[in-house]
Amino acid sequence: MPRRPDFARWLDETNDVTQTFLAAGQIPGLVNLAGGLPEPDTWPVAELSEFAARAMSEYPAQALAYTPIDGLPDLRDRIAAQYSTGALRLTRDNVLITTGGMQALDLLGKVLLDPGQLVAAQSPAYLGALDAWKPRAPRYRPLVFEDPGFDPQAGLAGAQFAYAVPNFSNPSGRLVPLEQRRALVAAAQATGVWLVEDDPYGHLYYDGPALPHMLALSASGAAVYDGPVIYTGTFSKQLAPGLRVGWVIAAPKVIKALTTAKQGSDMFTSGLCQHIVIEALDRGLPERILPGILDTYRARRDALCAAMAEHLSDHFAWQVPAGGMFVWAVARDAALDTDALMKTGLAHGVCISPSSVFDPLGRDRRAIRVNFTLNPPEVLAEGVRRLAAATRAQLAKAA
Amino acid sequence: MPRRPDFARWLDETNDVTQTFLAAGQIPGLVNLAGGLPEPDTWPVAELSEFAARAMSEYPAQALAYTPIDGLPDLRDRIAAQYSTGALRLTRDNVLITTGGMQALDLLGKVLLDPGQLVAAQSPAYLGALDAWKPRAPRYRPLVFEDPGFDPQAGLAGAQFAYAVPNFSNPSGRLVPLEQRRALVAAAQATGVWLVEDDPYGHLYYDGPALPHMLALSASGAAVYDGPVIYTGTFSKQLAPGLRVGWVIAAPKVIKALTTAKQGSDMFTSGLCQHIVIEALDRGLPERILPGILDTYRARRDALCAAMAEHLSDHFAWQVPAGGMFVWAVARDAALDTDALMKTGLAHGVCISPSSVFDPLGRDRRAIRVNFTLNPPEVLAEGVRRLAAATRAQLAKAA
Repeated sequence: MPRRPDFARWLDETNDVTQTFLAAGQIPGLVNLAGGLPEPDTWPVAELSEFAARAMSEYPAQALAYTPIDGLPDLRDRIAAQYSTGALRLTRDNVLITTGGMQALDLLGKVLLDPGQLVAAQSPAYLGALDAWKPRAPRYRPLVFEDPGFDPQAGLAGAQFAYAVPNFSNPSGRLVPLEQRRALVAAAQATGVWLVEDDPYGHLYYDGPALPHMLALSASGAAVYDGPVIYTGTFSKQLAPGLRVGWVIAAPKVIKALTTAKQGSDMFTSGLCQHIVIEALDRGLPERILPGILDTYRARRDALCAAMAEHLSDHFAWQVPAGGMFVWAVARDAALDTDALMKTGLAHGVCISPSSVFDPLGRDRRAIRVNFTLNPPEVLAEGVRRLAAATRAQLAKAA
Repeated sequence: MPRRPDFARWLDETNDVTQTFLAAGQIPGLVNLAGGLPEPDTWPVAELSEFAARAMSEYPAQALAYTPIDGLPDLRDRIAAQYSTGALRLTRDNVLITTGGMQALDLLGKVLLDPGQLVAAQSPAYLGALDAWKPRAPRYRPLVFEDPGFDPQAGLAGAQFAYAVPNFSNPSGRLVPLEQRRALVAAAQATGVWLVEDDPYGHLYYDGPALPHMLALSASGAAVYDGPVIYTGTFSKQLAPGLRVGWVIAAPKVIKALTTAKQGSDMFTSGLCQHIVIEALDRGLPERILPGILDTYRARRDALCAAMAEHLSDHFAWQVPAGGMFVWAVARDAALDTDALMKTGLAHGVCISPSSVFDPLGRDRRAIRVNFTLNPPEVLAEGVRRLAAATRAQLAKAA
């Protein structure tokens, strides 16, 4: 049989870590600290079930039809209103509904990148963003915000866009301080570079009030927001991931370009799922369930960090994150290769994420990402004990 | 303010026809023959509403969670079983669930195309496929199946893939005959070129039994299908578009590559929507509602074609399609520019699709696509009368 055409080149560059994660899900008794999964008990199942039936029977034309590419106008209006302030004036023309937060990243790559162009990305970076942009074959300039010499303007200059997760970055859990948010916005304004603010964890503050978004900090009081920030959000953490509803807030011309890209990507987001979200917003459901989510996740963060302090502090250093879903721990000993540790961990019944997958250049093998939202405190403690045993075994092998 | 980076180059190549269509939707009293919309009365609203509530309350872990990128195993199994025959042996490894049929086309572009590579596409071609592949910047070789000199092997040679809609192609409504299906499969086998069989209208046969899919014709009896055909389907026409559930059937290595692309596109398709489809399949809902859909659409096709025969036969030639959603009519007078006719039509209160948007090279201005599924017979007849008046006005202007 003749040889079939090759697949597109970017497919050669995928690593097998995600497959290893997925396979890990099949190991009985494994403690999974690797993913970024929520606690299913936080989902308001009964209410969502009622809203789904109502959306179908009362609004079949919205739930079941071909609906607008850019989203149901009622949902776009609600999101615009939710983010509007005196200085930040948003209309539905500033809002695109996406099929989950991931689609926003895919569409941004399609719209902002030709092959070989430069992305300035907070480093370490969200694996999903790197995945989303692979088909566009960008170059990367890592932005290390915590580096004392970091210069936002030099960091952004010449890029197609900058990418940041200011609230509890995946993977580092880092909160970008207010002053640096302002500096990034100023740099975007000075250089003209688009500033993508990815905010899936913006509601998950466990220790204090939320800092302002860069979107708000970039508002000029214009009648319709036309600034440099492209903000992406999702209902996956506020309601449930299975709805696959997210959104982008940006200047209208960006929304228009993204809408053109969405037309050729999946045409439109399920009206059923969008309408369930509208019903939930109108009844204040996200606000109502948020305190319970915060209590659950705060207790789990504390349990994880306490276990790590007890079992891992000889081998790793970390900061307790003020929110989000992850602890980022850096090995004290440079000889500890965390790609290898992931595999040793699997043999010890625990799965973590190694830092290499969050490095656009694939080089960093010094750190691990540990999730605390999926498992109850006692399981987290057991996972940390297994991880400590794996670390000792790994170091013994390396010595 | 400094100049912002340009958008990706492919965005410069979009035409404004889609925007004209969308704006047309706002004109009161307009008869819309342009889109490819279904009749909402065909949707089984009560049953889907019940299934939605049940999916949420009984299967929250499937409906609301992060679920597998490639789809719920139960749905993949059902689709594999539905298409399997003695010679065509499919397992879930041959099936990917997509977010509507459009996403399959986007993923195929991501996986099969590097910029500048060749697509051999049935011509005229589905506008949505051209939209989906624009970010991959392919070249096109038009395949005119009805051309007596058409040579499948020469048509496919050197392409990354060939694209065909054998059942009632959008826009031409053409049914590819069995012999030509066999010839295309043989050409795919001889050249090694992938053969994409896009089949959104495969259930909409109004006048007789369905012809075999090219997927089935390419089966070799292998234990797991590993042939050259990549088949795409959708529940948008069988159940309702708002569910956004489609699928791909192909060799396992194609499914794997598409799954990698889907991971970075929207992570996974809503489990809620997938589970509604599972419930519908288990209760035989698509088969139960199909006769009613066929009766409605057959009557509308006949009404449209009767009105066209009465009012338009001096100006256009067409064949009555044996299925699908469209009549393709070619102007008898080459001076009739159908881009201009679309605009003249709007002034006369009717909207049709001009052939230029279905030509990858944007050149064909000789034909129109007329939809018959959205409107009842009397509205179709009124639309045709308006279109005839617009045609006369347009020809008078051209003379």
